[in-house]
Amino acid sequence: MTSDFPELNPPQRVLLGPGPSNVHPRVMRAMAAPMLGHLDPEFILVMERIKELLRIVFRTKNEITFPASGTGSAGMEMVLSNLIEEGDEVVIGVAGIFGERFVDCAQRLGARVTRVDSPWGRIVEPAQIGAALKKLRRPALVALVHAETSTGVYQPVEEIAQLAHEHGALMVLDTVTSLGCVAVDIDAWQIDACYSCTQKGLSAPPGLAPVTLSARAMEVVRQRRTKCPSWYLDLAMIEQYWGGARLYHHTAPITMNYALYEALRLVVEEGLEARFRRHALNAQALHAGLEAMGLQLVAQEGYRLPQLSTVAVPAGADEATVRDRLLREFNIEVGAGLGPFKGRVWRIGLMGESARRENVTLVLAALETILGSMGVETARGRALEAAAAVYSANHGDS
Amino acid sequence: MTSDFPELNPPQRVLLGPGPSNVHPRVMRAMAAPMLGHLDPEFILVMERIKELLRIVFRTKNEITFPASGTGSAGMEMVLSNLIEEGDEVVIGVAGIFGERFVDCAQRLGARVTRVDSPWGRIVEPAQIGAALKKLRRPALVALVHAETSTGVYQPVEEIAQLAHEHGALMVLDTVTSLGCVAVDIDAWQIDACYSCTQKGLSAPPGLAPVTLSARAMEVVRQRRTKCPSWYLDLAMIEQYWGGARLYHHTAPITMNYALYEALRLVVEEGLEARFRRHALNAQALHAGLEAMGLQLVAQEGYRLPQLSTVAVPAGADEATVRDRLLREFNIEVGAGLGPFKGRVWRIGLMGESARRENVTLVLAALETILGSMGVETARGRALEAAAAVYSANHGDS
Repeated sequence: MTSDFPELNPPQRVLLGPGPSNVHPRVMRAMAAPMLGHLDPEFILVMERIKELLRIVFRTKNEITFPASGTGSAGMEMVLSNLIEEGDEVVIGVAGIFGERFVDCAQRLGARVTRVDSPWGRIVEPAQIGAALKKLRRPALVALVHAETSTGVYQPVEEIAQLAHEHGALMVLDTVTSLGCVAVDIDAWQIDACYSCTQKGLSAPPGLAPVTLSARAMEVVRQRRTKCPSWYLDLAMIEQYWGGARLYHHTAPITMNYALYEALRLVVEEGLEARFRRHALNAQALHAGLEAMGLQLVAQEGYRLPQLSTVAVPAGADEATVRDRLLREFNIEVGAGLGPFKGRVWRIGLMGESARRENVTLVLAALETILGSMGVETARGRALEAAAAVYSANHGDS
Repeated sequence: MTSDFPELNPPQRVLLGPGPSNVHPRVMRAMAAPMLGHLDPEFILVMERIKELLRIVFRTKNEITFPASGTGSAGMEMVLSNLIEEGDEVVIGVAGIFGERFVDCAQRLGARVTRVDSPWGRIVEPAQIGAALKKLRRPALVALVHAETSTGVYQPVEEIAQLAHEHGALMVLDTVTSLGCVAVDIDAWQIDACYSCTQKGLSAPPGLAPVTLSARAMEVVRQRRTKCPSWYLDLAMIEQYWGGARLYHHTAPITMNYALYEALRLVVEEGLEARFRRHALNAQALHAGLEAMGLQLVAQEGYRLPQLSTVAVPAGADEATVRDRLLREFNIEVGAGLGPFKGRVWRIGLMGESARRENVTLVLAALETILGSMGVETARGRALEAAAAVYSANHGDS
């Protein structure tokens, strides 16, 4: 027994990949709170507070705002499977893996999908979406990825949301990699349905998918001709549990909700604007350091996510070997490239708790050490100087 | 901030409802282990060990045995949405809420469902299923609930599984409320697809759904004419993450997997047979106590679950008031009746860590106190004597 199934003893990683990010000790501690039943009045209090905190973080007044009981992709499926009926026309922006995932999910639900493709590493232009919408008779929704985790691109959404509404379509937004890192303005941008995750910008463990739906989107849900094809993700039933009726649907992941509650308290204590500034500053330092080292950023200039940077693997370095050495020699996790970027880029995340000066400094130093040992020119020492200069210019505020 | 969103401080409940059950301190501690990425080699080790432990607990050699990333109902939906294609004929035994849920889920997936109904509180008879199967041309599967959480009935499955196979159908079993409490013999009973949860017999927090599928079931999955309608629960993709390929599909709930690992270690340390005996003994004592108090058990005699007892509310007592007083005065959670049992029964769970002599004694004493104060005749003191006698006859082993 003991030899086959030893006590859990994971190493302490510095999590600088595409998520999960490092978890604050207060969130860890919250998970040790006593278990409650999913209908216990004390747990219902926690549920109400989580909804309120999520509204603050999503910047919305949407009544239907709560964490779905699955990871981020379950949030995607909840939104699409409740909003799409067979034969619906939908427009999806695709410039990376998570745009592709949207398409796959919508097609399984019987949607007629119009893809609007952009090259990996670039944004989807509003004019492209506008042109696609003009060709459709009655588009049900437009779906976009706010922060494309596979490319590091920061997709502007406000203009596209306006176009969607002009054509009578709902606007659906994936904020899995943006919530808690950069502004997500659900009401100001008029987003009708949005989902995220817990393990990136919010720095809780993975396991829940915060979702929010506008009154207009809920009207579509309530007027469906057919039942939602998913029992587990059926909003018509789930809103009776998360809403006033408190009807049992499924057993909510109690402990994960404790973790999310504490993580959201930390976000609100820091303040959203301060949190976004922290992400921006650390990214600026990371980017300065990487460029000083002679490395190139892959995402379109002007649309680079602070929380996730895609870096081209330089000549002379093997992508997987460098990642492996970062993990084994420095306990640093960074992400591999996906799809066309496989073997060609690293993805360095600075999300939530992981977005710290010490992590920027460490990953630059470790990269310089490893690349240098492989004979790649790194302009020795320049990266750390460049990063330090960014922090100094900001009065040491990191 | 602090006033609206105070520090989490849930009371310590004695969880004697239909789940969640109380969580062992070692499981709590496991959740504080450092976060790992979902592709970290150290996490992959944990995944492999969880699969091995689940095979022990499910008593199976099934290769495809892992925890799905959702609660028990997500396990149901994973199994059905991967095995059912539109128009498939399925037979479902219905004698409670969870049989009804099976029907609803299968119908949403486009199955032609033959319901085999039994009255609430009774088992579904093999002859009923046999008769239903005979009327179908090519039944795809038979689905049964092993432990019907809404009635406390223990459904025999072996003979029905044999009937299913004689008609070329797969046998699907819901063990949400049985795994870890009573024997679940996947291979010996020839179950083709089975799912459970983490928060009942296994006493981890809710959030994962252990599933296991036979080679025959996976053959059906691989030969589908259409894609699984659910992206999130698509076994063809998920087996590439939980299997050797380690392809990213979604971010596994890392911390919940830590909790499940530790909970499974505790199950295996105790030993399955010893665990089943513990559940049986504590149920025997509870039942003796309840009957000595003059209360009546609702489930069909000979088919009563040890881990979940349905008790008729006696004349003179108000169902909700008693439950409320148990919670507020004694910190004990018991379950309400559902559907036709609403207002008429209590559901007392003794699952996993909650199945202990001290909890049996406490709930009997608390019930006697509350019912007595309402003027209900409880044969004062007899319940505790009857329970104690059961433990004594068993040499004090609880």
